Amino acid sequence: MLVTESLASLVASRLRDIPDFPERGVVFKDFTPLLADHDALAAVVEDVVARFRGDVDVVVGIEARGFMIGAATAYALGVGFVPVRKAGKLPAATESANYALEYGHATIEIHSDAFTSGTRVLVMDDVLATGGTAAATCDLVERLGGVVAGVDVVVEIAALGGREALGARPLHALLQV
Amino acid sequence: MLVTESLASLVASRLRDIPDFPERGVVFKDFTPLLADHDALAAVVEDVVARFRGDVDVVVGIEARGFMIGAATAYALGVGFVPVRKAGKLPAATESANYALEYGHATIEIHSDAFTSGTRVLVMDDVLATGGTAAATCDLVERLGGVVAGVDVVVEIAALGGREALGARPLHALLQV
Repeated sequence: MLVTESLASLVASRLRDIPDFPERGVVFKDFTPLLADHDALAAVVEDVVARFRGDVDVVVGIEARGFMIGAATAYALGVGFVPVRKAGKLPAATESANYALEYGHATIEIHSDAFTSGTRVLVMDDVLATGGTAAATCDLVERLGGVVAGVDVVVEIAALGGREALGARPLHALLQV
Repeated sequence: MLVTESLASLVASRLRDIPDFPERGVVFKDFTPLLADHDALAAVVEDVVARFRGDVDVVVGIEARGFMIGAATAYALGVGFVPVRKAGKLPAATESANYALEYGHATIEIHSDAFTSGTRVLVMDDVLATGGTAAATCDLVERLGGVVAGVDVVVEIAALGGREALGARPLHALLQV
Protein backbone atom coordinates (compact mmCIF):
# COMPACT_ATOMS: atom_id res chain seq x y z
CA MET A 1 0.00 0.00 0.00
CA LEU A 2 1.16 3.54 -0.70
CA VAL A 3 1.70 5.37 2.56
CA THR A 4 -0.18 8.34 1.14
CA GLU A 5 -3.25 6.22 0.41
CA SER A 6 -6.00 6.50 3.01
CA LEU A 7 -7.37 3.30 4.46
CA ALA A 8 -10.85 4.03 3.13
CA SER A 9 -9.56 4.47 -0.42
CA LEU A 10 -7.42 1.33 -0.08
CA VAL A 11 -10.49 -0.62 1.05
CA ALA A 12 -12.59 0.86 -1.75
CA SER A 13 -9.99 -0.20 -4.31
CA ARG A 14 -10.08 -3.81 -3.04
CA LEU A 15 -13.87 -4.24 -3.07
CA ARG A 16 -15.79 -5.18 -6.16
CA ASP A 17 -19.45 -4.67 -6.91
CA ILE A 18 -21.34 -7.78 -8.03
CA PRO A 19 -24.72 -6.80 -9.49
CA ASP A 20 -27.77 -8.98 -8.83
CA PHE A 21 -26.16 -11.09 -6.07
CA PRO A 22 -27.50 -12.84 -4.07
CA GLU A 23 -30.71 -11.73 -5.80
CA ARG A 24 -31.83 -9.42 -8.59
CA GLY A 25 -31.56 -5.73 -7.74
CA VAL A 26 -28.94 -6.16 -5.00
CA VAL A 27 -25.36 -4.96 -5.59
CA PHE A 28 -23.12 -7.19 -3.50
CA LYS A 29 -19.91 -5.74 -2.00
CA ASP A 30 -17.37 -8.54 -2.50
CA PHE A 31 -14.32 -8.20 -0.23
CA THR A 32 -12.47 -11.31 -1.40
CA PRO A 33 -9.98 -9.14 -3.38
CA LEU A 34 -9.11 -7.38 -0.10
CA LEU A 35 -8.56 -10.70 1.69
CA ALA A 36 -6.38 -11.99 -1.15
CA ASP A 37 -4.06 -8.97 -0.91
CA HIS A 38 -1.98 -9.37 2.24
CA ASP A 39 -1.02 -5.70 2.46
CA ALA A 40 -4.66 -4.62 2.29
CA LEU A 41 -5.76 -7.31 4.77
CA ALA A 42 -2.98 -6.30 7.16
CA ALA A 43 -3.87 -2.61 6.89
CA VAL A 44 -7.48 -3.37 7.81
CA VAL A 45 -6.55 -5.72 10.67
CA GLU A 46 -3.94 -3.36 12.07
CA ASP A 47 -6.33 -0.41 12.01
CA VAL A 48 -8.71 -2.40 14.23
CA VAL A 49 -5.84 -3.47 16.47
CA ALA A 50 -4.71 0.15 16.92
CA ARG A 51 -8.19 1.15 18.07
CA PHE A 52 -8.88 -1.80 20.41
CA ARG A 53 -5.59 -3.17 21.76
CA GLY A 54 -5.95 -3.77 25.47
CA ASP A 55 -9.65 -2.89 25.43
CA VAL A 56 -11.23 -6.18 24.31
CA ASP A 57 -10.97 -9.75 25.57
CA VAL A 58 -12.45 -11.61 22.62
CA VAL A 59 -13.49 -11.07 18.98
CA VAL A 60 -16.86 -12.45 17.88
CA GLY A 61 -17.11 -13.05 14.13
CA ILE A 62 -20.42 -13.47 12.32
CA GLU A 63 -20.80 -16.40 9.87
CA ALA A 64 -19.27 -16.65 7.39
CA ARG A 65 -17.28 -13.67 6.12
CA GLY A 66 -16.97 -12.33 9.66
CA PHE A 67 -14.96 -15.48 10.45
CA MET A 68 -12.27 -14.41 7.97
CA ILE A 69 -11.74 -10.84 9.12
CA GLY A 70 -12.58 -11.62 12.75
CA ALA A 71 -10.18 -14.51 13.27
CA ALA A 72 -7.26 -12.67 11.67
CA THR A 73 -7.98 -9.67 13.89
CA ALA A 74 -8.32 -11.77 17.05
CA TYR A 75 -4.92 -13.32 16.36
CA ALA A 76 -3.36 -9.88 15.77
CA LEU A 77 -5.06 -8.37 18.84
CA GLY A 78 -3.81 -11.16 21.09
CA VAL A 79 -7.29 -12.33 22.10
CA GLY A 80 -9.45 -15.37 21.42
CA PHE A 81 -12.04 -15.82 18.68
CA VAL A 82 -15.68 -16.88 19.06
CA PRO A 83 -17.97 -17.69 16.11
CA VAL A 84 -21.65 -16.74 15.88
CA ARG A 85 -23.25 -19.21 13.51
CA LYS A 86 -26.48 -19.95 11.72
CA ALA A 87 -28.87 -22.26 13.58
CA GLY A 88 -27.76 -25.86 13.98
CA LYS A 89 -24.09 -25.37 13.13
CA LEU A 90 -22.57 -25.07 16.61
CA PRO A 91 -22.19 -28.47 18.25
CA ALA A 92 -22.47 -27.69 22.00
CA ALA A 93 -25.22 -25.96 24.03
CA THR A 94 -26.16 -22.57 22.57
CA GLU A 95 -28.08 -19.37 23.11
CA SER A 96 -30.06 -18.40 20.02
CA ALA A 97 -31.59 -15.20 18.68
CA ASN A 98 -34.31 -14.86 16.07
CA TYR A 99 -34.46 -11.72 13.93
CA ALA A 100 -36.48 -10.41 11.02
CA LEU A 101 -35.30 -10.46 7.43
CA GLU A 102 -36.99 -8.61 4.59
CA TYR A 103 -39.12 -11.71 4.09
CA GLY A 104 -39.24 -14.13 7.02
CA HIS A 105 -36.84 -14.72 9.89
CA ALA A 106 -33.37 -16.08 10.61
CA THR A 107 -31.78 -17.58 13.71
CA ILE A 108 -28.19 -17.28 14.86
CA GLU A 109 -26.45 -18.97 17.77
CA ILE A 110 -23.48 -18.66 20.12
CA HIS A 111 -22.07 -21.33 22.43
CA SER A 112 -23.51 -20.73 25.92
CA ASP A 113 -20.03 -21.13 27.45
CA ALA A 114 -18.22 -19.03 24.82
CA PHE A 115 -17.03 -16.50 27.40
CA THR A 116 -17.70 -15.46 30.99
CA SER A 117 -19.77 -12.54 32.25
CA GLY A 118 -17.99 -9.20 32.03
CA THR A 119 -15.96 -10.15 28.94
CA ARG A 120 -15.34 -7.19 26.62
CA VAL A 121 -16.32 -8.19 23.09
CA LEU A 122 -15.51 -6.78 19.66
CA VAL A 123 -18.09 -7.89 17.06
CA MET A 124 -16.83 -8.10 13.47
CA ASP A 125 -18.34 -8.62 10.04
CA ASP A 126 -17.58 -7.63 6.47
CA VAL A 127 -20.67 -5.55 5.68
CA LEU A 128 -23.29 -3.76 7.77
CA ALA A 129 -26.52 -3.50 5.80
CA THR A 130 -29.83 -3.42 7.72
CA GLY A 131 -27.96 -4.42 10.86
CA GLY A 132 -30.33 -7.23 11.76
CA THR A 133 -27.64 -9.87 12.11
CA ALA A 134 -25.22 -7.55 13.91
CA ALA A 135 -27.88 -6.38 16.39
CA ALA A 136 -28.92 -9.99 17.07
CA THR A 137 -25.24 -10.86 17.62
CA CYS A 138 -24.92 -8.03 20.15
CA ASP A 139 -28.05 -9.32 21.89
CA LEU A 140 -26.46 -12.77 22.19
CA VAL A 141 -23.22 -11.30 23.53
CA GLU A 142 -25.11 -9.31 26.14
CA ARG A 143 -27.27 -12.31 27.08
CA LEU A 144 -24.04 -14.13 28.03
CA GLY A 145 -23.06 -11.15 30.20
CA GLY A 146 -20.59 -9.76 27.68
CA VAL A 147 -20.06 -6.06 27.04
CA VAL A 148 -20.03 -4.95 23.39
CA ALA A 149 -16.91 -2.81 23.22
CA GLY A 150 -17.51 -2.15 19.53
CA VAL A 151 -18.97 -3.37 16.26
CA ASP A 152 -16.42 -3.17 13.46
CA VAL A 153 -17.23 -3.70 9.80
CA VAL A 154 -15.29 -3.19 6.62
CA VAL A 155 -18.19 -1.55 4.77
CA GLU A 156 -21.33 0.20 6.01
CA ILE A 157 -24.15 0.60 3.52
CA ALA A 158 -25.38 3.77 5.18
CA ALA A 159 -28.80 4.04 3.49
CA LEU A 160 -30.01 0.76 5.02
CA GLY A 161 -30.11 2.00 8.61
CA GLY A 162 -27.84 -0.56 10.26
CA ARG A 163 -26.28 2.05 12.52
CA GLU A 164 -29.68 2.81 14.05
CA ALA A 165 -30.41 -0.90 14.52
CA LEU A 166 -27.35 -1.15 16.79
CA GLY A 167 -28.63 1.53 19.17
CA ALA A 168 -25.94 2.88 21.49
CA ARG A 169 -23.31 0.24 20.66
CA PRO A 170 -20.25 1.92 19.11
CA LEU A 171 -20.04 1.17 15.38
CA HIS A 172 -16.98 1.71 13.20
CA ALA A 173 -16.85 1.18 9.45
CA LEU A 174 -13.65 1.50 7.45
CA LEU A 175 -15.69 2.63 4.47
CA GLN A 176 -19.21 4.02 4.13
CA VAL A 177 -21.05 3.66 0.84
CA MET B 1 0.66 -22.55 27.50
CA LEU B 2 3.34 -24.33 29.51
CA VAL B 3 6.59 -24.37 27.61
CA THR B 4 6.97 -28.03 28.45
CA GLU B 5 3.62 -28.90 26.91
CA SER B 6 3.80 -30.32 23.40
CA LEU B 7 1.68 -28.74 20.72
CA ALA B 8 -0.27 -31.97 20.19
CA SER B 9 -1.16 -32.22 23.87
CA LEU B 10 -2.07 -28.52 23.94
CA VAL B 11 -4.37 -29.04 20.95
CA ALA B 12 -5.87 -32.16 22.51
CA SER B 13 -6.63 -30.24 25.71
CA ARG B 14 -8.48 -27.53 23.77
CA LEU B 15 -10.70 -29.85 21.71
CA ARG B 16 -13.92 -31.28 23.01
CA ASP B 17 -15.82 -34.32 21.85
CA ILE B 18 -19.50 -33.74 21.05
CA PRO B 19 -21.30 -37.09 20.73
CA ASP B 20 -23.99 -37.55 18.07
CA PHE B 21 -23.20 -34.35 16.16
CA PRO B 22 -24.04 -33.56 13.40
CA GLU B 23 -25.78 -36.94 13.39
CA ARG B 24 -26.22 -39.96 15.64
CA GLY B 25 -23.11 -42.09 15.98
CA VAL B 26 -20.65 -39.37 14.99
CA VAL B 27 -18.32 -37.87 17.63
CA PHE B 28 -17.64 -34.31 16.54
CA LYS B 29 -14.24 -32.73 17.33
CA ASP B 30 -15.14 -29.18 18.40
CA PHE B 31 -12.19 -26.80 18.20
CA THR B 32 -14.01 -23.65 19.38
CA PRO B 33 -12.28 -23.89 22.82
CA LEU B 34 -8.93 -23.72 21.00
CA LEU B 35 -10.00 -20.64 19.03
CA ALA B 36 -11.27 -18.91 22.17
CA ASP B 37 -7.90 -19.34 23.91
CA HIS B 38 -5.47 -16.89 22.33
CA ASP B 39 -2.34 -18.69 23.51
CA ALA B 40 -3.54 -21.96 22.01
CA LEU B 41 -4.65 -20.30 18.77
CA ALA B 42 -1.31 -18.50 18.49
CA ALA B 43 0.64 -21.71 19.14
CA VAL B 44 -1.23 -23.45 16.31
CA VAL B 45 -0.89 -20.54 13.89
CA GLU B 46 2.79 -20.03 14.65
CA ASP B 47 3.57 -23.70 14.17
CA VAL B 48 2.15 -23.45 10.64
CA VAL B 49 4.03 -20.20 10.03
CA ALA B 50 7.32 -21.80 11.11
CA ARG B 51 6.85 -24.62 8.60
CA PHE B 52 5.69 -22.51 5.62
CA ARG B 53 7.10 -18.98 5.90
CA GLY B 54 8.44 -17.93 2.52
CA ASP B 55 7.16 -21.09 0.84
CA VAL B 56 3.52 -20.20 0.15
CA ASP B 57 1.85 -17.28 -1.60
CA VAL B 58 -1.72 -17.73 -0.38
CA VAL B 59 -3.76 -19.67 2.19
CA VAL B 60 -6.98 -21.31 1.01
CA GLY B 61 -9.49 -21.95 3.81
CA ILE B 62 -12.38 -24.38 3.48
CA GLU B 63 -15.88 -23.22 4.59
CA ALA B 64 -16.56 -22.58 7.35
CA ARG B 65 -14.16 -23.56 10.16
CA GLY B 66 -11.24 -23.42 7.74
CA PHE B 67 -11.96 -19.70 7.38
CA MET B 68 -11.17 -19.16 11.06
CA ILE B 69 -7.86 -20.97 11.25
CA GLY B 70 -6.92 -20.14 7.64
CA ALA B 71 -7.43 -16.38 7.78
CA ALA B 72 -5.52 -16.02 11.05
CA THR B 73 -2.66 -18.05 9.56
CA ALA B 74 -2.64 -16.08 6.30
CA TYR B 75 -2.34 -12.86 8.27
CA ALA B 76 0.51 -14.27 10.36
CA LEU B 77 2.29 -15.74 7.33
CA GLY B 78 2.19 -12.45 5.46
CA VAL B 79 0.12 -13.80 2.56
CA GLY B 80 -3.41 -13.36 1.26
CA PHE B 81 -6.45 -15.49 2.06
CA VAL B 82 -8.83 -17.18 -0.40
CA PRO B 83 -12.08 -18.90 0.65
CA VAL B 84 -13.41 -22.15 -0.86
CA ARG B 85 -17.15 -22.11 -0.34
CA LYS B 86 -20.23 -24.24 -0.71
CA ALA B 87 -22.06 -23.88 -4.03
CA GLY B 88 -23.76 -20.55 -4.63
CA LYS B 89 -22.01 -18.57 -1.92
CA LEU B 90 -19.23 -16.90 -3.91
CA PRO B 91 -20.52 -13.91 -5.87
CA ALA B 92 -18.18 -13.75 -8.90
CA ALA B 93 -17.32 -16.35 -11.59
CA THR B 94 -16.23 -19.66 -10.07
CA GLU B 95 -14.72 -23.05 -10.75
CA SER B 96 -16.65 -25.81 -9.02
CA ALA B 97 -15.92 -29.37 -7.95
CA ASN B 98 -18.40 -32.10 -7.15
CA TYR B 99 -17.45 -34.86 -4.74
CA ALA B 100 -19.07 -37.84 -3.09
CA LEU B 101 -20.37 -37.87 0.47
CA GLU B 102 -21.45 -40.97 2.35
CA TYR B 103 -24.93 -40.42 0.93
CA GLY B 104 -25.11 -38.15 -2.12
CA HIS B 105 -22.82 -35.41 -3.36
CA ALA B 106 -21.63 -31.92 -2.46
CA THR B 107 -20.23 -29.07 -4.53
CA ILE B 108 -17.62 -26.51 -3.55
CA GLU B 109 -16.38 -23.48 -5.45
CA ILE B 110 -13.45 -21.08 -5.75
CA HIS B 111 -13.37 -17.73 -7.53
CA SER B 112 -11.87 -18.30 -11.00
CA ASP B 113 -9.60 -15.26 -10.54
CA ALA B 114 -8.62 -16.08 -6.96
CA PHE B 115 -4.92 -16.39 -7.86
CA THR B 116 -2.67 -16.72 -10.89
CA SER B 117 -1.05 -19.83 -12.32
CA GLY B 118 2.04 -20.94 -10.41
CA THR B 119 0.80 -19.64 -7.06
CA ARG B 120 1.93 -21.79 -4.10
CA VAL B 121 -1.08 -22.63 -1.97
CA LEU B 122 -1.48 -23.85 1.61
CA VAL B 123 -4.91 -25.48 2.12
CA MET B 124 -6.28 -25.31 5.68
CA ASP B 125 -9.19 -26.80 7.59
CA ASP B 126 -9.98 -27.80 11.15
CA VAL B 127 -10.51 -31.54 10.69
CA LEU B 128 -9.51 -34.09 8.04
CA ALA B 129 -11.99 -36.97 8.02
CA THR B 130 -12.61 -38.84 4.75
CA GLY B 131 -10.71 -36.13 2.90
CA GLY B 132 -13.40 -35.61 0.27
CA THR B 133 -13.66 -31.86 0.74
CA ALA B 134 -9.92 -31.37 1.09
CA ALA B 135 -9.18 -33.41 -2.05
CA ALA B 136 -11.81 -31.48 -4.02
CA THR B 137 -10.27 -28.23 -2.76
CA CYS B 138 -6.85 -29.36 -3.99
CA ASP B 139 -8.41 -30.19 -7.35
CA LEU B 140 -9.84 -26.67 -7.59
CA VAL B 141 -6.47 -25.13 -6.64
CA GLU B 142 -4.71 -27.17 -9.30
CA ARG B 143 -7.37 -26.39 -11.92
CA LEU B 144 -6.50 -22.68 -11.46
CA GLY B 145 -2.83 -23.55 -12.00
CA GLY B 146 -1.94 -23.40 -8.33
CA VAL B 147 0.56 -25.71 -6.64
CA VAL B 148 -0.57 -27.32 -3.38
CA ALA B 149 2.40 -26.68 -1.09
CA GLY B 150 0.62 -28.41 1.76
CA VAL B 151 -2.65 -29.37 3.39
CA ASP B 152 -2.68 -28.42 7.07
CA VAL B 153 -5.36 -29.47 9.52
CA VAL B 154 -5.68 -29.26 13.27
CA VAL B 155 -6.97 -32.81 13.67
CA GLU B 156 -6.70 -35.88 11.43
CA ILE B 157 -9.15 -38.69 12.11
CA ALA B 158 -6.75 -41.30 10.86
CA ALA B 159 -9.15 -44.24 10.53
CA LEU B 160 -11.23 -42.48 7.88
CA GLY B 161 -8.56 -42.52 5.17
CA GLY B 162 -8.33 -38.83 4.38
CA ARG B 163 -4.56 -39.00 3.95
CA GLU B 164 -4.96 -41.52 1.11
CA ALA B 165 -7.65 -39.34 -0.55
CA LEU B 166 -5.09 -36.53 -0.87
CA GLY B 167 -2.66 -38.67 -2.86
CA ALA B 168 0.85 -37.19 -3.04
CA ARG B 169 -0.07 -33.79 -1.59
CA PRO B 170 1.83 -33.19 1.66
CA LEU B 171 -0.52 -33.42 4.65
CA HIS B 172 0.27 -32.22 8.15
CA ALA B 173 -1.99 -32.65 11.18
CA LEU B 174 -1.19 -31.14 14.56
CA LEU B 175 -2.98 -34.03 16.21
CA GLN B 176 -3.98 -37.49 15.00
CA VAL B 177 -6.86 -39.28 16.65
